[in-house]
Amino acid sequence: MALPFLNYQQYHLMDNFMRAAIEEALKGRNEGGIPIGSVLVHKGEIIGRGHNRRVQKGSVILHGEMDALENAGRLTAATYRECTLYTTLSPCPMCTGAILLYGIPRVVIGENHTFMGAEDLLRANNVELTVENDETCIDMMQRFIERHPTLWNEDIGE
Amino acid sequence: MALPFLNYQQYHLMDNFMRAAIEEALKGRNEGGIPIGSVLVHKGEIIGRGHNRRVQKGSVILHGEMDALENAGRLTAATYRECTLYTTLSPCPMCTGAILLYGIPRVVIGENHTFMGAEDLLRANNVELTVENDETCIDMMQRFIERHPTLWNEDIGE
Repeated sequence: MALPFLNYQQYHLMDNFMRAAIEEALKGRNEGGIPIGSVLVHKGEIIGRGHNRRVQKGSVILHGEMDALENAGRLTAATYRECTLYTTLSPCPMCTGAILLYGIPRVVIGENHTFMGAEDLLRANNVELTVENDETCIDMMQRFIERHPTLWNEDIGE
Repeated sequence: MALPFLNYQQYHLMDNFMRAAIEEALKGRNEGGIPIGSVLVHKGEIIGRGHNRRVQKGSVILHGEMDALENAGRLTAATYRECTLYTTLSPCPMCTGAILLYGIPRVVIGENHTFMGAEDLLRANNVELTVENDETCIDMMQRFIERHPTLWNEDIGE
């Protein structure tokens, strides 16, 4: 897979799970979609992967995080409560609501420079957040938003 | 379609849109699924219908409201802001987040006796709520929860 925005040295040093989320985002971009990716991790293993499918499926609910949750399938509440969700971009209110519904206790966020999601609501509900503000994630979204502002606004309800 | 839980006189006097949401819920129940339905209404017309698909599609994100939004397709922000969402049951945090993401200003809720969703969060964000506490909706959910407590708990992350 082409990874044109990546500093390769940085990429290979990166957390494996955030790397997998970025790979999902790039899959989406290569399909002509919005480059946001996510993985759901349980006890050190990826159990769901996903990326935004607005363009590809005409979907208004398949944000990256939602797609990863959907692809993980039906899980018990006990399993969700041992999971960490990785996402390349700060989670919007919808994805935040899904995280709260299922009681996912930890979220690792690639960046919140290009879009600030509902992080306050997550924190208020005791979700542990790690914001990496990773340059690859920021660069990927900045380029996308510059080129496709209308599509981006549609995805965030603006 | 069989409507065994309905008081027919009440049903025919009911708001057409809540009636359509109940019809969706009953479709779901007839498919062996969780009986929660929803319709998205724009300028007096239903533009999206849906029901919970956890059982039918193994979906963890297709709650009734999410399915209605998905089936309405990609809409402009201006259109969402003229919509009303009807749902047979108080919206969970995920569906609440979707309502907030797209700026839907009004939600009509069939009932919140069997499950209280994130109504406080909706109100705090100036979403206008009408809670009907309709007996048909309450009865439909009560019977379902009594018969399928494990499935119900799974759907609300418990």
